Amino acid sequence: MELIVELLNITTGGNRIAVLSEQAANLLGVHSSDRIKITYGNKESIAIANIAENFPKNRIGLFEETESALGVKDDEIVQVQLASLPESLFNIRAKLHGERLREKDIVAIVKDVVERHLSTVEIAAFLTALSIHGLSTGETEALSRAMVATGKTLNFGEGPILDKHSVGGIPGDKTSMLVVPIVAAAGFAIPKTSSRAITSPAGTADRVETLCPVNLSIKEIENVVAKTNGCLVWGGSLELAPADDLFIQVEYPLGIDPMLLPSILSKKKAIGATHVVIDIPTGMGAKIKTRTEAYTLASDFVDLGKRLGLNIQCALTFGDQPLGCSIGPALEAREALTTLMGGGPPDLHEKAVSLAGMLFDMVGVENPRGMAEEMIDSGKAEKKLREIIAAQGGNPEVKPETIDVGPKSAVVRSERTGKVLWLSTDDIVRIAREAGAPKEKGAGVVLHAKLGENVRKDGVLFEIYAQRSSKLSSALELASQLSPIVLSRKPEEKMILDTIPEKGMHEKTFMLDR
Amino acid sequence: MELIVELLNITTGGNRIAVLSEQAANLLGVHSSDRIKITYGNKESIAIANIAENFPKNRIGLFEETESALGVKDDEIVQVQLASLPESLFNIRAKLHGERLREKDIVAIVKDVVERHLSTVEIAAFLTALSIHGLSTGETEALSRAMVATGKTLNFGEGPILDKHSVGGIPGDKTSMLVVPIVAAAGFAIPKTSSRAITSPAGTADRVETLCPVNLSIKEIENVVAKTNGCLVWGGSLELAPADDLFIQVEYPLGIDPMLLPSILSKKKAIGATHVVIDIPTGMGAKIKTRTEAYTLASDFVDLGKRLGLNIQCALTFGDQPLGCSIGPALEAREALTTLMGGGPPDLHEKAVSLAGMLFDMVGVENPRGMAEEMIDSGKAEKKLREIIAAQGGNPEVKPETIDVGPKSAVVRSERTGKVLWLSTDDIVRIAREAGAPKEKGAGVVLHAKLGENVRKDGVLFEIYAQRSSKLSSALELASQLSPIVLSRKPEEKMILDTIPEKGMHEKTFMLDR
Repeated sequence: MELIVELLNITTGGNRIAVLSEQAANLLGVHSSDRIKITYGNKESIAIANIAENFPKNRIGLFEETESALGVKDDEIVQVQLASLPESLFNIRAKLHGERLREKDIVAIVKDVVERHLSTVEIAAFLTALSIHGLSTGETEALSRAMVATGKTLNFGEGPILDKHSVGGIPGDKTSMLVVPIVAAAGFAIPKTSSRAITSPAGTADRVETLCPVNLSIKEIENVVAKTNGCLVWGGSLELAPADDLFIQVEYPLGIDPMLLPSILSKKKAIGATHVVIDIPTGMGAKIKTRTEAYTLASDFVDLGKRLGLNIQCALTFGDQPLGCSIGPALEAREALTTLMGGGPPDLHEKAVSLAGMLFDMVGVENPRGMAEEMIDSGKAEKKLREIIAAQGGNPEVKPETIDVGPKSAVVRSERTGKVLWLSTDDIVRIAREAGAPKEKGAGVVLHAKLGENVRKDGVLFEIYAQRSSKLSSALELASQLSPIVLSRKPEEKMILDTIPEKGMHEKTFMLDR
Repeated sequence: MELIVELLNITTGGNRIAVLSEQAANLLGVHSSDRIKITYGNKESIAIANIAENFPKNRIGLFEETESALGVKDDEIVQVQLASLPESLFNIRAKLHGERLREKDIVAIVKDVVERHLSTVEIAAFLTALSIHGLSTGETEALSRAMVATGKTLNFGEGPILDKHSVGGIPGDKTSMLVVPIVAAAGFAIPKTSSRAITSPAGTADRVETLCPVNLSIKEIENVVAKTNGCLVWGGSLELAPADDLFIQVEYPLGIDPMLLPSILSKKKAIGATHVVIDIPTGMGAKIKTRTEAYTLASDFVDLGKRLGLNIQCALTFGDQPLGCSIGPALEAREALTTLMGGGPPDLHEKAVSLAGMLFDMVGVENPRGMAEEMIDSGKAEKKLREIIAAQGGNPEVKPETIDVGPKSAVVRSERTGKVLWLSTDDIVRIAREAGAPKEKGAGVVLHAKLGENVRKDGVLFEIYAQRSSKLSSALELASQLSPIVLSRKPEEKMILDTIPEKGMHEKTFMLDR
């Protein structure tokens, strides 16, 4: 039937949706969430019908996504008919019933996700079914390949392309800001794309953004890497695996992450990486809590890497507490720079050198760890970071002390003398976010006591930084409620970690920063 | 922060959604699909944030649902802040991980579904998880009770309130149109609410609507039942279990039906039923394919009924072919009326008398089946149907031959002589729908040959009725492609039912008419 276009002039941000009156929907035999085919001249678009009670019966309301797909204007006439269900929906239904999907089934799903032929309801059902039933190795490979095939790719020419990725999970993990310049300084290409924080106080893109722009185009990235061997950019707008960007939008409210492997490795494949170290922080403060889980995940990464033609090594890293002392974008950038300049906390130095050493070992460097140490000791890595900062459009002369943090800050002191027995990373994350991180880049937490360290009564446990007094006070209030650092002289002095239900329900933290 | 309201003047038909610019979302720390709290004067509403690229940064776009919740006008100022996640979302996440939910968890979910605090993505994940993990008896009970508690209820006073419900699945099943007048004619209350077709060629509400209005208010229904003991109305707009109406919207595209039991029994409970017969058509042509499945479902119904204080008996009925001969709203109404008048197909008569007899038996009638027969033979049931038609606003003098069917029709003839060995109800459904049913009420199929019957070469297999010639020809074309009725002299003559892949993928039919 013919309907008159009414442009709604807003995006839906996801589904292609068209609004129909109940009368028009009845005439078309369309139920809510059925698909309709809209034809305008020689263009056509599939949209999901949204049936609205008081909508004019001779009109169809189009959101911007469909408007631009059709190139149609207000008051023009389009042909509308009921569309058949996409083939991929039957594949999703099969997965709901526990069937294993074939490669072509998965290709159909990913293609229809990217072309917006599947609704968020259908994507949610698919991801839930994957999360419950799990994925076979074949399914994981097919998903990874399909996500690369439907996205853009980068090309840095011949030769090994190195990369490093963390599955995420411990706050303060600014290792990439050290590994990239160390590797690039040694003459290897390492085009690092990273994410912004979703649930954490800072993603690598947030940290680097306090030093230089990170929102570069593919062309600009290729230039930066040609000039410096490395980059530290935000991957979110590059459309390397656009299906994954849509999956993440649905996974986030559900707190599930069934696509962890294909999500990470499809993006590595899209940037042309050949040798990748995957960091799996393991411990109470991390996404992966136990060694068993970590080993399983690691072997899945290695297997999937082989199938995709990627050389992968995994590192299980200590994940019981934050890395380094600083948490929050600017505070962490400052700590990363200090560490590259030869100072900084020893755990950060050690982790960066170890991971860079693994990469050097994979490409056949003799004395690989020594090479990594040498890049820091000689100042070459620091120099390289400054080159990258300059190439991305920042100030290469930046000094740790000129990176803006705070300006409001306060210390939290210990009420007793003792040794740090336990430290809740979840609580530290909540305090840093309450202070304003990652949105307010100068906000965050600096730890003055870590596991096993001695603290005296009235000694400083941690410092909170904020950009506004109001945020500082609410973070301080939260800190006093949570007591994230637990002291005792000996472990047996403090065996009870928490009491239930006095402190209320313990919300499981869900991390989706990758 | 303060934002200026922009009314979008359309409904979303589901979620409460508000549109924010990227800038406003960034300032609020809101990600797509996060919840925001909108405050206007002393009213507040939770909405799900939809982040739009080109939306004015000082404005918030409100769909009609949120506009009416707040009572706000264009260009007025509202307060907007990031809202915390609803408690029920953590219950849904727990179900995703296979945990069993407690009654209060389920109450929270159902309440938040009805109040639109959960997005369709979250509801989809919940239903998918239920579909995969299954529900415990306790969960089923809690869901049923919560759905009743959040909806409207009907009250027909003291005394047994009888009801009959089919779990759905065979086309042509117009039994309710006979059982209701039989039971009401015997002096028992039977306030029957039914559904419209979603995936079938006719629901009971569609059939009855060819005789009288079915979209009655609760007050009107109470009047009709006070006057006649029975009614045959559409339950869809009564909000008896509004959560279920929202669940169905999500289940429909996914082809899952995990809420079958609570969905049906919550509505029986809401109308105050005390004695209910559940019809479970079982066979190749039905939703329930095997006896094992049917017995399990039946015992679940009886158990759940006990927990809810409902007296339930189930009938496993023959489901290998359509019931009676007519399929399509008006054709079925005609057949139902003819059968009440003493004619009609024997299987329909038999089923109606049996189910009504079961109800009579449950309330202690002596010779219950004889009572049901007597209501038809004496003409009392026919008279009662005419009373109900009149009370609902239709013409009580209606005759079978004056019910409008067609007017275009054509017969499909047999190419050989033989006995009906196999009859595909799925294919009959597709042909009836292609002819225009249920939208075009006079459209449908009339079978002239059913299982085991002899057909001569050129004898009529079935007739197709349509309201338009174009629909008639496309239904005829589909019929010649599908050959839904298979003949042979002896079973062993025709052992191959189908060949793969010649006839292409067999789509599993999904039925969600309840």
